[in-house]
Amino acid sequence: MSTQFDHVSVIKKSNIFFDGKCVSHNIIFPDGTKKTIGVIFPSSLTFGTGAPEIMEINGGKCRVRQKDGEWQTYEAGQRFQVPGNSSFDIETLETVDYVCHFG
Amino acid sequence: MSTQFDHVSVIKKSNIFFDGKCVSHNIIFPDGTKKTIGVIFPSSLTFGTGAPEIMEINGGKCRVRQKDGEWQTYEAGQRFQVPGNSSFDIETLETVDYVCHFG
Repeated sequence: MSTQFDHVSVIKKSNIFFDGKCVSHNIIFPDGTKKTIGVIFPSSLTFGTGAPEIMEINGGKCRVRQKDGEWQTYEAGQRFQVPGNSSFDIETLETVDYVCHFG
Repeated sequence: MSTQFDHVSVIKKSNIFFDGKCVSHNIIFPDGTKKTIGVIFPSSLTFGTGAPEIMEINGGKCRVRQKDGEWQTYEAGQRFQVPGNSSFDIETLETVDYVCHFG
């Protein structure tokens, strides 16, 4: 798996959510699709989704519970998919480094 | 001033400094030069420099004291230059959104 994205645009301004517990930057691909790269610091948060998304975990450790689902643990090298118009609870045990893929 | 960088590579893995008080991502330009984009949360920190750098502040508010210098306040739209092999103290009053230019 590649450690970087090439030939992309990066929005300079960061996205800061949940009082700084989550920080991300937006990346735009040549075909117009978007991903975000960021971190989630140790916390218990609930994220809502608009579009379906795939969360790729590149560092750290978290437990995730999808809407009406069971808790599952994810670490570096793992990913999980979240449907659109849904939500997931995430308990970050060790600071998570992630890429979020949309669409 | 452009709000984004185009035709660049972005390293997926974040850089986390000072227990999460500073989070950044590395961006590589076609000519091989590097910049980082990131945030600094409210804190009092000292950053060392290897290469000379320019800190471009795109959000928030901070006070900065260069080595042997006076405190100066910087806000969105301002920038300051730091020599190589030096350091600066930064007191972040409101979360700072920045681009760091090297070389």
